[in-house]
Amino acid sequence: HIYKQWQSLFCAATPTEEMNGAGNLMDFLDEPFPDVGTYEDFHTIDWLREKSRDTDRHRKITSKSKESMWELIKSLLDAWSGWVVMLLIGLLSGTLAGVIDLAVDWMTDLKEGVCLSAFWYSHEQCCWTSNETTFDDRDKCPQWQKWAELMTGHAEGAGAYVLNYFLYVLWALLFSFLAVSLVRVFAPYACGSGIPEIKTILSGFIIRGYLGKWTLLIKTVTLVLAVSSGLSLGKEGPLVHVACCCGNLFCSLFSKYSKNEGKRREVLSAAAAAGVSVAFGAPIGGVLFSLEEVSYYFPLKTLWRSFFAALVAAFTLRSINPFGNSRLVLFYVEYHTPWYMAELVPFILLGVFGGLWGTLFIRANIAWCRRRKTTQLGKYPVLEVIAVTGITAVLAYPNPYTRRSTSELISELFNDCGALESSQLCDYINNPNMSRPVDDIPDRPAGPGVYNALWQLALALIFKIVITIFTFGMKIPSGLFIPSMAVGAIAGRIVGIAVEQMAYHHHDWIIFKNWCRPGADCVTPGLYAMVGAAACLGGVTRMTVSLVVIMFELTGGLEYIVPLMAAAVTSKWVADAFGKEGIYESHIQLNGYPYLDVRDEFTHRTLATDVMRPRRNDPPLAVLTQDSTTVEDVETLIKDTDYNGFPVVVSRESERLIGFVQRRDLTLAIKNARQKQDGVVSSSVVYFTEDAPQLLASNPQPLKLRRILNLSPFTVTDHTPMETVVDIFRKLGLRQCLVTRSGRLLGIITKKDVLRHMAQMMNQDPESIMFN
Amino acid sequence: HIYKQWQSLFCAATPTEEMNGAGNLMDFLDEPFPDVGTYEDFHTIDWLREKSRDTDRHRKITSKSKESMWELIKSLLDAWSGWVVMLLIGLLSGTLAGVIDLAVDWMTDLKEGVCLSAFWYSHEQCCWTSNETTFDDRDKCPQWQKWAELMTGHAEGAGAYVLNYFLYVLWALLFSFLAVSLVRVFAPYACGSGIPEIKTILSGFIIRGYLGKWTLLIKTVTLVLAVSSGLSLGKEGPLVHVACCCGNLFCSLFSKYSKNEGKRREVLSAAAAAGVSVAFGAPIGGVLFSLEEVSYYFPLKTLWRSFFAALVAAFTLRSINPFGNSRLVLFYVEYHTPWYMAELVPFILLGVFGGLWGTLFIRANIAWCRRRKTTQLGKYPVLEVIAVTGITAVLAYPNPYTRRSTSELISELFNDCGALESSQLCDYINNPNMSRPVDDIPDRPAGPGVYNALWQLALALIFKIVITIFTFGMKIPSGLFIPSMAVGAIAGRIVGIAVEQMAYHHHDWIIFKNWCRPGADCVTPGLYAMVGAAACLGGVTRMTVSLVVIMFELTGGLEYIVPLMAAAVTSKWVADAFGKEGIYESHIQLNGYPYLDVRDEFTHRTLATDVMRPRRNDPPLAVLTQDSTTVEDVETLIKDTDYNGFPVVVSRESERLIGFVQRRDLTLAIKNARQKQDGVVSSSVVYFTEDAPQLLASNPQPLKLRRILNLSPFTVTDHTPMETVVDIFRKLGLRQCLVTRSGRLLGIITKKDVLRHMAQMMNQDPESIMFN
Repeated sequence: HIYKQWQSLFCAATPTEEMNGAGNLMDFLDEPFPDVGTYEDFHTIDWLREKSRDTDRHRKITSKSKESMWELIKSLLDAWSGWVVMLLIGLLSGTLAGVIDLAVDWMTDLKEGVCLSAFWYSHEQCCWTSNETTFDDRDKCPQWQKWAELMTGHAEGAGAYVLNYFLYVLWALLFSFLAVSLVRVFAPYACGSGIPEIKTILSGFIIRGYLGKWTLLIKTVTLVLAVSSGLSLGKEGPLVHVACCCGNLFCSLFSKYSKNEGKRREVLSAAAAAGVSVAFGAPIGGVLFSLEEVSYYFPLKTLWRSFFAALVAAFTLRSINPFGNSRLVLFYVEYHTPWYMAELVPFILLGVFGGLWGTLFIRANIAWCRRRKTTQLGKYPVLEVIAVTGITAVLAYPNPYTRRSTSELISELFNDCGALESSQLCDYINNPNMSRPVDDIPDRPAGPGVYNALWQLALALIFKIVITIFTFGMKIPSGLFIPSMAVGAIAGRIVGIAVEQMAYHHHDWIIFKNWCRPGADCVTPGLYAMVGAAACLGGVTRMTVSLVVIMFELTGGLEYIVPLMAAAVTSKWVADAFGKEGIYESHIQLNGYPYLDVRDEFTHRTLATDVMRPRRNDPPLAVLTQDSTTVEDVETLIKDTDYNGFPVVVSRESERLIGFVQRRDLTLAIKNARQKQDGVVSSSVVYFTEDAPQLLASNPQPLKLRRILNLSPFTVTDHTPMETVVDIFRKLGLRQCLVTRSGRLLGIITKKDVLRHMAQMMNQDPESIMFN
Repeated sequence: HIYKQWQSLFCAATPTEEMNGAGNLMDFLDEPFPDVGTYEDFHTIDWLREKSRDTDRHRKITSKSKESMWELIKSLLDAWSGWVVMLLIGLLSGTLAGVIDLAVDWMTDLKEGVCLSAFWYSHEQCCWTSNETTFDDRDKCPQWQKWAELMTGHAEGAGAYVLNYFLYVLWALLFSFLAVSLVRVFAPYACGSGIPEIKTILSGFIIRGYLGKWTLLIKTVTLVLAVSSGLSLGKEGPLVHVACCCGNLFCSLFSKYSKNEGKRREVLSAAAAAGVSVAFGAPIGGVLFSLEEVSYYFPLKTLWRSFFAALVAAFTLRSINPFGNSRLVLFYVEYHTPWYMAELVPFILLGVFGGLWGTLFIRANIAWCRRRKTTQLGKYPVLEVIAVTGITAVLAYPNPYTRRSTSELISELFNDCGALESSQLCDYINNPNMSRPVDDIPDRPAGPGVYNALWQLALALIFKIVITIFTFGMKIPSGLFIPSMAVGAIAGRIVGIAVEQMAYHHHDWIIFKNWCRPGADCVTPGLYAMVGAAACLGGVTRMTVSLVVIMFELTGGLEYIVPLMAAAVTSKWVADAFGKEGIYESHIQLNGYPYLDVRDEFTHRTLATDVMRPRRNDPPLAVLTQDSTTVEDVETLIKDTDYNGFPVVVSRESERLIGFVQRRDLTLAIKNARQKQDGVVSSSVVYFTEDAPQLLASNPQPLKLRRILNLSPFTVTDHTPMETVVDIFRKLGLRQCLVTRSGRLLGIITKKDVLRHMAQMMNQDPESIMFN
């Protein structure tokens, strides 16, 4: 169990506070203690402190830059390093996305056949030279041979079908087995979509190795394998993870970023934008996604840099041109007809469908993932992946809409039917007298192919809905965007064709009369597919602006933004009515990450005194006094408690707070003093004041520890409403906060206490939230 | 002087703290004190308190909604009111923008002539029925007559020219005189762009009447007059102000927004987005503008609602269709040629030009505005406007590029030359054998018209640069976007034509060889104009993402985003090298608004103790004790000081802080008690504890005031770095914060102290910042 280590660490540890006092920080950093300024794994960072450290660093460089030319150049390089990192992230994530796209294309087609002229060509590349452009004719390109044809010489017949079927399933099983094995052996963090973990990391949590080089490598390889295996998953979420790994990689080039967890997170926010940018070819949407969905601390400077990284990534991807259409976007569509007000009714219905699907999916998936965690099932991840792949492949092959890759399916569903289109979905009965331009075809009656396609699409819809619930969360890289969009696109296209045929056959009905003349092109089923896709994606992720902007970038016209927006709003409202959390927040909760959501509104009337520890019947708070504790007392305290820090008070009687000292600093300082400073023994008095206390001559030499004392701990009074406390924790990124009443120290509130209290107030099981 | 009143108020007043304790707030609001929960004019709001009040309101409604069906419906209405307000804002600001556009079109043309078929038609509308589409032929439409033709019958000749010239100037003077008079008499706040003030208001400052109904009405009317008068100003900034006035207007419909200054600001942020959305027809750009440039507190919920408001506004405007092209955007352009890597060099040069122009403009304009404020000049605003209008009109008429409206000019500069274009700028020498489609014309040698146009454009450039400096800041509504864009577009077009002609005549040069074959369409001068416009706008406003997105929405293609971005980045870097502040921040500083910029980084090593008051030689802090001050003492304290609040301590000896009480509450409570409560006399003891103090029987009845005590004042220790304090003020929106050391109260830091300290540290004159 990959979170095992984390659990044990997290349960034992209390967040600590380090110094944010600029003055004493400098002294402290000059000391030769190792590991100062880093955090332990699975701990929360202190944003204020990180910011303070960066300001110090900046101040140092600025003052040095006046000394010599070389320092000036170094300071300029430092100022530019942010842009360099962005450029590198854009280039690498764009390149990786291009390579992934090409590899997925090739391997997906490999399940069905091989290119004789060059085995490393995908079906489309193999037939590029042939002049046919439709889906049907493309299959007839002679260089491309299905496995049965190649092995037995027979392209048709039951035997060939069975052989192809068998090989399709075999390849799928091989790919998924490879994927899950690689993840298991080399990089357990490479599984899943990664977005919940990235959200948590960006909110200020440390998960070492989650964005490491191994994770990057293995996630890239296994993502290709997982997508090619034909499982119901997408590459979008994992691409965000891959881009963040790139970001983390390039952070290590510059000490500005590698040594400051706060600055590092600025880079990661931008990398997330680059990830979505290459996933869809939508740079603006990517930036908004990072802003809306992923990031926690997003200053304006980051906005601008994210945009730069997202653009570089998108253009790098375009110059690789994996989609072969020299377009930036994944699903390029162009519609020729405007939409009409009356169509808002089906669009809103699609929104309702999307909201319901989102709710259903989240509940079912979370229930299944919980079962996986708590039962025997979780112990056999490889077997699970193999089983799901087997079922998926066996069920998917017979249906042409599930056999092909999901993004190809979505692309076909989004597209409007041209006059020459030969796909089943475009099998309309043409008017033989038609002599209009190819662009603007009037509505036509559906032919048998369309009705056939409708049945197959309906089956594909049910299949996708069910299988996606079991797929997301397995121990392979898996994104949710594409499956969600596929569900929506299928539903949307079905509704679209239904409306189109109704409008054609009944254009005298009152609802069609005003806008649909006979012989006109009234309804675009592809637009319905797009609206449906937006609705379903919105229902699952609860994205709003970024969703609409991504979809807008796909079509490139503001024309269709109103339908998309109507569907997205409806879907969000419907889904929110059943539960406020999107799939990512649900998974964060399921995994018990300490994530303080910006969007959760805390509206209860509790006070700081209700939350702080010690609780009423607990032993009193473990504190140090400023000049009367001995070294031995301190050592006993460190041994007996597992708190990561201790408040320092004037005396136990007055309980006036003077500062906060960190467990690790205390341990290191005493160890240091015992080794190097003569006269420090167990009965030496430890003091935190400026001047040594007045002691009898018989006492051993006292030990001054003011250097490691944080003189500006954050305090609130016991009467502060928790609402305000939550706001302070959120906005300032605190790790803990001391509670006082009229100058007396009463207790402490840690981030964990806040999260536990919030969970309690929302009637959730607090233990499952924090420690499951 | 319109800031007179403000100055006197601001100088006298110290920000006050009101209660943010949820518990005692409720008690307090139940009291019948009038005006509770409002702020005085020119005071800063307390964001935490506003948030807390909204949560209380929400809690009340939620608990009531379980009582009856009616309450449930009311709670649903309350939840939906935000969307209703957005819808209304979108509708009204879209409509107003449309009306303004139509009126400006008509009145601008009125300066030159009149439509005989219907006098309320603009030139374009008048000639709509004629088939000619080019600028030149349009002029020949017979229904449209110039004034000279109408009055004397002669369309040509020196006499007609002089008469037309004279009437042009006369109309311009009339319009601008009307505008400035209306502003002076009815709504002094209607002048200027409004964006600096809106930024200040959104950051939590109260300027009553700035967003009032009168301002809305007068600003709308005078905006039309000012733009029509031909002055070098635009309507974009004022449209943001108008939209914010609409937002404020609709806030008053719902107590949720009208009674909560925090919630009101959420609505205003969205309204600002709607304003930019209608100014350019760029809804996404509008939202990003609001996020990047204007807003202070921008939660995700507001992002989504802003987007909705911006879309509704844009579509309302489109349905009015003032540009007559059924496009959403102000300058719709479509280019047919891609750009080439080598072209980045001129694009970056344009960026440098933009940055230099931005710096020059900001410095010169601020110097001029300062002179206006400090010398006699400021006393004759009407005369100033008349003079500038006169000079503008006299100089503008002879040059066809300055005579027409600035947005028309920009539109022409942005556009690519079609084959049939008859404007001077498109006077290329056509190859007689040319038989290509109209879209894709190869580069051609420039004809005499182009060279003529270049001279005129160069003169127009100088004219615009100089006159804009004097125009912005006069007492009429004036936006900066359009003049800045015009400067950039002219410079860009000139550079574009130069590059085009170089490429045509010297396509064997090494720099052109790789990408420009003879007979190909290599260079699009219109794109250069667009890039130049972006660069200049960026230099002046320092917008980044929103700028690029607005420009992207104008072209609708990601193709040209790299040139735009390169220019915007260069321009920002160049301009930032000379001074970090954009024009809006400079005007905020000039006017001395208490605006704590999110982008200013405070990097000095001062501590809270260096900033807090009382300073070393000051009298001690005015405090109240919890149970030993008499009513008389309190009254004396209120009379002798002008602080807006007082800390309450346990006793003067211990100086332990227990809370903070507000001056106004204290005054009201004592007045109330004296009137209504028997036995309260001057020698009565005031107490803030739960239980009455032990007093001798001879003492009069004590007065309990715990109800008005804020038990959770914000405190920091004296060792807290100012950097952290600034961060806390910014992120939590505090008004003041108390400074303690080991539980003892030492002093107080107000927002004004923070601002003054920041100005001091940045070596600016602190007095000019705060009190100019």
